[in-house]
Formats: sequence, C-alpha cells, structure tokens
Amino acid sequence: MINARLYALPSTGLFMPTTAHAIAAFAPDKPLGPHTIARRDPGPKDVAIEIQFCGICHSDIHFLRGEWGEIPYPAVAGHEIIGRVTAVGADVSKYAVGDTVGVGCLVDSCRSCPSCAEDLEQYCTNGSTGTYMGVDKHTGGPTYGGYSSSIVVDEDFVLRIPSNLDLAGAAPLLCAGITTFSPLKTWGVGAGSVVGVVGLGGLGHMGVKFAVAMGAEVVVFTTTPGKVADAKALGAHEVVISTDEEAMGRQAGRFDFILNTVAASHSLDPFVAALKRDGTMVLVGVPAEPHPSPSVMPLIFGRRRIAGSLIGGIKETQDMLDFCGEHNITSQIEKITRDDINTAHERVLKSDVKYRFVIVM
Amino acid sequence: MINARLYALPSTGLFMPTTAHAIAAFAPDKPLGPHTIARRDPGPKDVAIEIQFCGICHSDIHFLRGEWGEIPYPAVAGHEIIGRVTAVGADVSKYAVGDTVGVGCLVDSCRSCPSCAEDLEQYCTNGSTGTYMGVDKHTGGPTYGGYSSSIVVDEDFVLRIPSNLDLAGAAPLLCAGITTFSPLKTWGVGAGSVVGVVGLGGLGHMGVKFAVAMGAEVVVFTTTPGKVADAKALGAHEVVISTDEEAMGRQAGRFDFILNTVAASHSLDPFVAALKRDGTMVLVGVPAEPHPSPSVMPLIFGRRRIAGSLIGGIKETQDMLDFCGEHNITSQIEKITRDDINTAHERVLKSDVKYRFVIVM
Repeated sequence: MINARLYALPSTGLFMPTTAHAIAAFAPDKPLGPHTIARRDPGPKDVAIEIQFCGICHSDIHFLRGEWGEIPYPAVAGHEIIGRVTAVGADVSKYAVGDTVGVGCLVDSCRSCPSCAEDLEQYCTNGSTGTYMGVDKHTGGPTYGGYSSSIVVDEDFVLRIPSNLDLAGAAPLLCAGITTFSPLKTWGVGAGSVVGVVGLGGLGHMGVKFAVAMGAEVVVFTTTPGKVADAKALGAHEVVISTDEEAMGRQAGRFDFILNTVAASHSLDPFVAALKRDGTMVLVGVPAEPHPSPSVMPLIFGRRRIAGSLIGGIKETQDMLDFCGEHNITSQIEKITRDDINTAHERVLKSDVKYRFVIVM
Repeated sequence: MINARLYALPSTGLFMPTTAHAIAAFAPDKPLGPHTIARRDPGPKDVAIEIQFCGICHSDIHFLRGEWGEIPYPAVAGHEIIGRVTAVGADVSKYAVGDTVGVGCLVDSCRSCPSCAEDLEQYCTNGSTGTYMGVDKHTGGPTYGGYSSSIVVDEDFVLRIPSNLDLAGAAPLLCAGITTFSPLKTWGVGAGSVVGVVGLGGLGHMGVKFAVAMGAEVVVFTTTPGKVADAKALGAHEVVISTDEEAMGRQAGRFDFILNTVAASHSLDPFVAALKRDGTMVLVGVPAEPHPSPSVMPLIFGRRRIAGSLIGGIKETQDMLDFCGEHNITSQIEKITRDDINTAHERVLKSDVKYRFVIVM
C-alpha cells in the first residue's frame, strides 16, 4: 500500500496518454501486424500495467475477423493478460507498483445493476465493458486488448496473481480458467460429484483440472482417441470416446453435472441422457451453426437442465486465482512471440495447440 | 380407519377379479367403443375404486393411437381419475370405503431407487408403472386406465381429495394439475416471482391458477388474441400475444420462471430472452416435430436454463391437492358422457375445449 501511495499518479491529467506497442488487425481478412495505440492517462482509480504475457483465445479470432459483428479497425484483441504494475492512480488502494496482476475479459461495468450488485459484472444489465470489443468509458474510443505492451485498467477490474504460479501459464486462467471454474462452482461441484467434461481443448483441460481439484469424479468426453492419455495425465479418472454409441449408452443417468466446452455444432442428446435426474449440462461455447435441436423427452423424463454460462465476475475470478494458487493450477501452454501470432491463430483454428498459446509480449 | 377394517378384504385370493366396463381402443385408427376388462382381485394393500369422473388428457390420444409406440389392443386410457372407495385390502391404513379418492398417472414404482426414496416416483430409475401403458406387477398384464367403471390401486398411489372440491373439476388435477404445480414448486415460485405461462390450454390454465395462488405476478403468452379475456378471468395479470415481436421484445429479462406448456413445435428463443439472469424455462410438452434449436447465445449471456419436468411424485400430488383444497382450485371443465369420448378426442386435437373434458363414468 505504501508503494501505491509513493508512486501514485496525480489525477490532474498532467500525464500524456501512454503509447503502447500492439499487434493489431487492420482488416477482417488480413494478417495482424504491429501498430501503435494510445493508452489513456491513468485516472485516480487506474492501474497501469506492463503486459508480460497474453493468452490467445478463440474469441480473439472471431472478434478480429469481424465474425461477431463489424468492428473498427485497427483492432487489438487479447483478454488473458498478465503483467506488472508500473503506476497507480491516487485513489488506488489494492495494488502497488511492482505487483503482478491480471486482467481478464472485462475492464468495467455499470456497477449499479442487480448483477453488478451481486458481483456478477459479466451479466451487467447495462452492458459491461469488454477488454476488447468495448467502448472505453474514459476516452469514448474502442477498448484495446492485451496483444499490446501495456494497458490501463480500473483497479476494480484488476486481479491479483498468486506468487507461486507460473506467470505465462496463469494467463489463460483469466478467460479459459474462469469460464470453466464459474459453472463448476455455480452448480455446486465438489467432493462426490460425478462430472463430465466435453471437449479437451483450452477450456476443457482447465475444466478437468478444476473439477479434479474440487474432488469430483471426472470423465472426459472426446471424439479423439489420441487425447485419452492426455486427459488422464490432466487428472481425468475416465475417458469416453463420444462417437462410440455403445460407450455413450453406458453413461446414461451417471452425471450430476456436465461442462460442455465444444463450440462446434453437435448433438447434445447423448450428453443430456448421461445426466442424472436434476442434472445440468452447461454450454460455454457458441456454435457457428446451431446444435441439432435437443430432444425434449430426455429433459422431461429426468427433470434435466441445459444452461449457459459466461466467464465469471471479478470476485469469482479472484476466488478462482486464489484456488489456483492453493492447488498450483495453471494452464498447459505453448509460448510464442509477437511474430508468431498469425501462425498461432491458424493453428488455433485447427485445434492444433495443447492447450493454449501465450504470447510473450 | 374403522370402516377400512370393517370392509377389509381377505388377502387369500378368494375374491374373483372384478369386471369393469371400459371404453377401449381396438386399433390405432378406429373409434373407441365399449369393452369389458378384468380388474385384479384387491390384494392386502389395494384400494378398489368405483370411478366417477375421468379427465381426458392429450396423452390418452397419443397412447391409444399408438403414437408413443406399439401397444396391445384393446387399450384403455385415462389417468385423471376421481372415484369412491368400494373396498380396501386388509393392510390398507390410509383409506376407507366411501372415501373420495384420486388416481393420477402412476399406480406403482420400484420403491427402492434414489428417486422413489425421495418421493419422486415419476423418475423411478427402474421404471414406474403407468396407470395405462404400464405392466401390472400383480397380473403381468397391461394396466388399464380410467375410461372404466372401476380400478384397483395400491393405497400408496391413491390420493385423498379435499372435501370442498368439485369432483369433476378435480379430476384434471391428477395430471394437468400436478404437471404444472410440480415445476412451479421445484423452481421456487412464490410471492414476488414473475412467472410466464406459455399456452392457455389444459395445462396452461392450471399453471395460471397455481402461480396466481402462489402469489406470483403472472403473464400469459398466447398466440390467440381471443384468449386474452379468458386468461385474465383465470387471474393472469397480463397477457402477451407471443407472435407480436415488439411486445415480445419488451419482455426481455423480465421473468424468474417460465412454464412452457405448448407441445407444438415453436421457437423457444423469445421466451429464453424473456428470462432474467439465472431464470429457467421448463418444458412440459413433447413436440411431435422438434422445436427449432434454441440459440446458445441467450443461454450463455444470462446463465439461463431450459429444463423439463414430468408430472410429480405421489407426495407432491397430495400436496397439490391439499393446496387446491385450501385455495379452492379446480380445473375449468366440460363434462361429457361415455358416448362423447370419440368426439371429445377430435375436439382435443383441435384445441377446442376450455380447458379439459371430463367423462362422467
């Protein structure tokens, strides 16, 4: 805290906006390249962060290619950010210069709606501000993500990173981590739960690690026989090849909870049937083409539920990071440099990564 | 209880199976007609019931026409049964001759699985026994429903009918009633809840009555402008014409819970969007053609849930009947005679009934 005061920035606007070296998209269909962006002059509640690592999320690609709606170019993605605090505003109380911190998918929200009041800023009724694809309330301009040398974020949206964690491996916790941790917690997964994780990618591998650490019996569903050993190495107790109808039939009525991380369109029915009575399957991926319509009968004849879940709030994200500190959980990653981003994006699209790329900025 | 003892039947099998006068289907595509069936000799735990009223459920028609799978003919439907106890077995403790009782969709279950242990016989893991479309554990033959002069049922599956209720109007409580009451209770509807009821038919009109009696703010969604006045007469606080996109848009994020009673295929998306964060829409109808696949985005961006629900257990059915007694709730019905059943079935298929036919046996 003392450091925070010593290095506190005046809130008089004397400081010029910082220049940051980013990797930006200039068009939906062109490779990314270097670009200089302005970061706002830190306000009294702001934390300026030198970015050390940024994970690559599939969402980054959708966003940068304009697949989620037209965007202003140049555009900068990245919402799995780890860095070091370089300056703090006068009223910042939680962070000091030198702290290792994280920034996830959100950098602001209305702070007054029922969801914000319940620490669920991701469901902010008035629209939370994305780390990218948002509008910076301070500047009125677009928000720029973590494919960048620095970022300035309100301290309320900055996370503390436990000191024992590998920092590059911690980056994906800020999106892939919280996206899987939050539904496991919301639906009460713990010791004795029987949990299925559908898909073993960036999200799924985190889901396995969390569910195992929470004490659940964890079964991975994958279409890829080559992933059986990987799933077990991550702690899964069992792996089911989901294209094997007979094996799937044997799962009927087994699961308290299924975390479905697969964004590709697929039949949900075998997984719904695998739920116990009152069990829930949560979808965290949005398919480009709709899933085949789920059959109503297995929902009714088991009071089963299909739900969605979106990342997590700031408080829960901190809880997740603290949980990772206690259990020494990070993401399995492949480190790359700025120059590798275009190649990495192509490989993400081919699911050719175990399990997350992290850019060393 | 004294009556029960006085009239108790010996369990020695001295009594011959009773003959009952039923209205049966003889083929999937032929009109129903009179038929004589045997009811089993009441065992020690059995209650023999002279049937006074039986509601007509859409399920009866699906079953009798073989639309839910091949069935043995002649077949007898009916699972909204009200009658008078005419005899009880030696070990029957809950009912006495002369009691007014009800029988719903179930006449037995395994009684040992986790669902049965939790009073949720409708989800019996080993398969509960339907009042029709089941196999009588005592005789090994098919179960015959309530389109019949009498029935013999284990006392554990017999319900007590509050004395203040109109008996014909009480018949549909045994299926339409519990099918709508159970999800409202399961999902915690009460004072202050904002509840939507989709469809105003046999199920929907009961859902409205229950939700209103539970203290909820109740909005009916219907495609039929002619039903607005009816819905309000039933107690609905508001009616939304669900084909009116603008009106539907105004419902976004409003509902804690939506009870969707429409079995016809329809888009679920506008109703999902009408849910609050963490809200649930429960489906109680099985469409012949699948609903269009629900969009994943509104599930994720609101942690919303789609679920199913099947009738209710015996304990909850009794709770529902007691609730009806307290609040003087029965179904709106049109009484018919045995001779009218074929016409009534045709009218059910055209939704030409307010809101349930009840056969005076």
